[in-house]
Amino acid sequence: MALLRIALAQTNPVVGDLTANADSLVRWTRDAADRGAHLALFTEMFLTGYPVEDLVLRTSFVDASIRALEQVAARLADEGLGELPVVVGYVDRAGLAPRVGQPKGAPLDAAALLHRGRIVTRTAKHHLPNYGVFDEYRYFVRGDRLPIFRLHGVDVAIAVCEDLWQEGGPVAVVGEAGAGLLVVPNASPYEREKDDVRLELVARRAREAGCALVYANQVGGQDELVFDGDSLVVDGSGTLVARAGQFREELLVVDLDLPVSDAEPGLFPFDAGDGTTITVERVVLSAEPVAPYEPVTPEVEPRLDDTGEVYHALVLAVRDYVAKNGFGSVILGLSGGIDSALTAAIASDAIGPERVHVVMMPSRYSSEHSLGDAEELVRRQGVNARIVPISDIVDGFEKEIALSGLAAENLQARVRGMILMGLSNEHGHLVLTTGNKSELATGYSTLYGDSAGGFAPIKDVPKTMVWALARWRNEHTDPSFLMSAERPIPDNSITKEPSAELRPDQRDTDSLPPYEVLDRLLDDYVEKDMGSAELIAAGHDPALVARIIRLVDLAEYKRRQYPPGPKITPKNFGRDRRLPITNRWRETPS
Amino acid sequence: MALLRIALAQTNPVVGDLTANADSLVRWTRDAADRGAHLALFTEMFLTGYPVEDLVLRTSFVDASIRALEQVAARLADEGLGELPVVVGYVDRAGLAPRVGQPKGAPLDAAALLHRGRIVTRTAKHHLPNYGVFDEYRYFVRGDRLPIFRLHGVDVAIAVCEDLWQEGGPVAVVGEAGAGLLVVPNASPYEREKDDVRLELVARRAREAGCALVYANQVGGQDELVFDGDSLVVDGSGTLVARAGQFREELLVVDLDLPVSDAEPGLFPFDAGDGTTITVERVVLSAEPVAPYEPVTPEVEPRLDDTGEVYHALVLAVRDYVAKNGFGSVILGLSGGIDSALTAAIASDAIGPERVHVVMMPSRYSSEHSLGDAEELVRRQGVNARIVPISDIVDGFEKEIALSGLAAENLQARVRGMILMGLSNEHGHLVLTTGNKSELATGYSTLYGDSAGGFAPIKDVPKTMVWALARWRNEHTDPSFLMSAERPIPDNSITKEPSAELRPDQRDTDSLPPYEVLDRLLDDYVEKDMGSAELIAAGHDPALVARIIRLVDLAEYKRRQYPPGPKITPKNFGRDRRLPITNRWRETPS
Repeated sequence: MALLRIALAQTNPVVGDLTANADSLVRWTRDAADRGAHLALFTEMFLTGYPVEDLVLRTSFVDASIRALEQVAARLADEGLGELPVVVGYVDRAGLAPRVGQPKGAPLDAAALLHRGRIVTRTAKHHLPNYGVFDEYRYFVRGDRLPIFRLHGVDVAIAVCEDLWQEGGPVAVVGEAGAGLLVVPNASPYEREKDDVRLELVARRAREAGCALVYANQVGGQDELVFDGDSLVVDGSGTLVARAGQFREELLVVDLDLPVSDAEPGLFPFDAGDGTTITVERVVLSAEPVAPYEPVTPEVEPRLDDTGEVYHALVLAVRDYVAKNGFGSVILGLSGGIDSALTAAIASDAIGPERVHVVMMPSRYSSEHSLGDAEELVRRQGVNARIVPISDIVDGFEKEIALSGLAAENLQARVRGMILMGLSNEHGHLVLTTGNKSELATGYSTLYGDSAGGFAPIKDVPKTMVWALARWRNEHTDPSFLMSAERPIPDNSITKEPSAELRPDQRDTDSLPPYEVLDRLLDDYVEKDMGSAELIAAGHDPALVARIIRLVDLAEYKRRQYPPGPKITPKNFGRDRRLPITNRWRETPS
Repeated sequence: MALLRIALAQTNPVVGDLTANADSLVRWTRDAADRGAHLALFTEMFLTGYPVEDLVLRTSFVDASIRALEQVAARLADEGLGELPVVVGYVDRAGLAPRVGQPKGAPLDAAALLHRGRIVTRTAKHHLPNYGVFDEYRYFVRGDRLPIFRLHGVDVAIAVCEDLWQEGGPVAVVGEAGAGLLVVPNASPYEREKDDVRLELVARRAREAGCALVYANQVGGQDELVFDGDSLVVDGSGTLVARAGQFREELLVVDLDLPVSDAEPGLFPFDAGDGTTITVERVVLSAEPVAPYEPVTPEVEPRLDDTGEVYHALVLAVRDYVAKNGFGSVILGLSGGIDSALTAAIASDAIGPERVHVVMMPSRYSSEHSLGDAEELVRRQGVNARIVPISDIVDGFEKEIALSGLAAENLQARVRGMILMGLSNEHGHLVLTTGNKSELATGYSTLYGDSAGGFAPIKDVPKTMVWALARWRNEHTDPSFLMSAERPIPDNSITKEPSAELRPDQRDTDSLPPYEVLDRLLDDYVEKDMGSAELIAAGHDPALVARIIRLVDLAEYKRRQYPPGPKITPKNFGRDRRLPITNRWRETPS
């Protein structure tokens, strides 16, 4: 047995910014070297960021990724970091002849080992996820290798992300081939209440492979996806050894006592148990174990509670969407209700209240308490505020075209949307949309009205969870939050009855069942995909099932034009739930 | 050899409407029987419509599809049509145990043979397309059979759509197994200037299989896809025998002289040449050739010219989007410019001018000729028109918030969008968006302004093609067009210089290069995915390349919120070109 110090870089790359990501790789590698690491591990497709979607089908982009890898390998050596081996994800290509059904240029979700200025070996993901938010059959062809490199006498195998999750393939070969350590770059997005499935999986694979396993996960927001980090290290018995924090960058350093090997180098084919052959490529970097040293005490970061996880995910998503898209500030409409109050708090925590602009836009139907609650929030959070009354503008419209009922209600919401978009265009703020998932599901929103904006922080948060998040934030703070206010959300915004205030004495319950009832039904229908018979058997009221399913199905066209927002559930009405707009199928015949 | 009369149903199913599609199947089968057919062939997934996207992941939906197939088989027999064998596509499921990476419930893109009230045999698509607009690895598991049924002595094989396009699999087995006819249900979307690739492919496969081939394609609009029909029949030498019309439903009846067989029934495994085994299932319906009869002269419908194809595709797309979503009428803003003029003509041809409502919304910057050209169009087409001036509304806004430059221009576009949406909500019209692809590509449009609406008929049409389509329509008519007007588009709208008229003396060329130059560059960058070096090598101005690429990349967020519209090119900025919004990759570093 011999000690090895592994530095696991839980990093936040920027999609498409190969230069910045390469700079970041050098910086983190220097940090790892300074902390005495013998190996630095980065995340899946770190050099390009993940996911890059159709960029990968551009020849010039794949060329640039390969070139960036070669350049950064040389640069590490130039900057005196060549002796520290680095495992990093990037995009490569397989040399396949083009054929129907194969992605253009046959790209690979690849990982490479860099050492002394050279690319020692390359591999690529074998199992391509193609469910939920993943479309990897569209983008990649599969790898068929398992590199194992000897580092100070220890054999270290490299596999990529999804290869852990599926049976067969490179990970299945590790045990038989023999390795002392398996390192795995990942880009695995957050989803709420996943329990600890990653730890269970990583522990199981370590036991199957009979070796320790280091799991490095991406962190950060990328359009609708939030990567939570939460990187893991387990020993060969599957016992947790070290764990990084959630929703933050971190260099996790761990000393592992690992078996040494003297297996012959070379290429060895293995039956991978999934109908394919995996070629083990065994190379030697260094055979001599490092001299004994005092190991560091491994960090095992405690995890957030379920509600805290969601709140942190939303804050990080907003922070990264704003920064990575080059915005300096955000703007949102503040009604005095809970949705906009929570959105303001998330924004203030993400980028600081001094960069958050709120607009109060009272109408003839706005209640006294609405403006009061909004003003109370402004005082508490310290955001920038202005008031723009909408009555005269609405009157001006109604002089030109006569609108009644819902059309008149929508007009008010649209005037507000236009004011926000106008101020956004004039001052360069990103508009945050304040709608929640219960509204988005049932279509209880106005196209180009309250649904207007660039990013929708709570679009995947059901109304009942909106309240829970508001209560959670009033009771918690965190050094990563950029707003220092305590209890930033006015209690009255949390406790009062929800209303859109688009007509006199309107209440949400005029149109919808109580949110506790609605959200349970939506969860069963949307997240669990239950059919009408199942829904009724699960205790939902049959008439309500018919009504709500119809609302949800008919609102598909609105959801298509909704701004992106962080995904926290299995079905965020994004690419993980794609229904036709033209669709006559109804669970319950109407 | 023996004659067989095949009826090929080139039909327009409604996605999700199992009842209506089953009714349609019975109706078309009766027509086929009345015309003396010995076999009726329907399209891919005809019972469910195609594509159904994530509906297929709902257990209840797959159950309903299977039940609908059983019911319609029984109903055909009940209605005296049981003696006519019917091949039809539907959704089935494979009995696989759930595992990671496999679609939930393991659905199949299936086809069945119905006869005498029974389902005689079932098969499923083997090759799953997963490029362009197709995501079939997400939805289906693959079939592994090739059914061959004997009909009046002739062996008839069944394969599904994509199995024709790729090497290996069921179609590769037909020649070796031996069949007298191959029938193929399809749902193959239209794309402009595809030349005659389907005919070339069908002819090649027929020669390889050594038998005649009947190719039945779906017709109709389904969200962004337009299916063009254009169904084909070739003989065993690959010679075209019959061809259905484009963009219309049709029962194509053809008599084929086919070899008889006495091969043994049973199950026979074949190496499919793609690493899989295909099981040929040979069954006998009837061994006796039909008595000699006088064959009908086969129809070979001439094809439309390239521009005519596009125009017909757009008309059919609008007609079906309106009807299948239950709208009775449409509304659009009419500026006097060419985009809205062409959109109005398409709408009038699709649903009749009496159901088309146009709104002229002059501002302080509108020119004399704008209103005049718009009024001329109203006279020519006979659509319903009203005038709503926007100056007072814009003034009302500007009293509350001060906007300048682009923000003020956007305000005008948004006021127009709000007027159309208000009238839509009040009167139930579907709003048609009039933006073209050159604008959508470069972001030359206002979010929630001119881009507001439910369907965007010309969103995939470059500006230069907008003019070509307008000229084409002024020179052509067709019995399928519901507007009888001749030259429905005012010449002045075609010939005048394009302007958004959002500030004094504005011209499109203030912000963009001439459209002839722009459209060529966009075609190379967007459709052909060329990198900056390739673009410059192809003769595009380097400075223009840098500027336009930047515009295209930065407009991704706007395109995400654009309404759906018919796809006519390889990359319609829909699911066939998916880039991250948060994306720092630039072909030309900025």
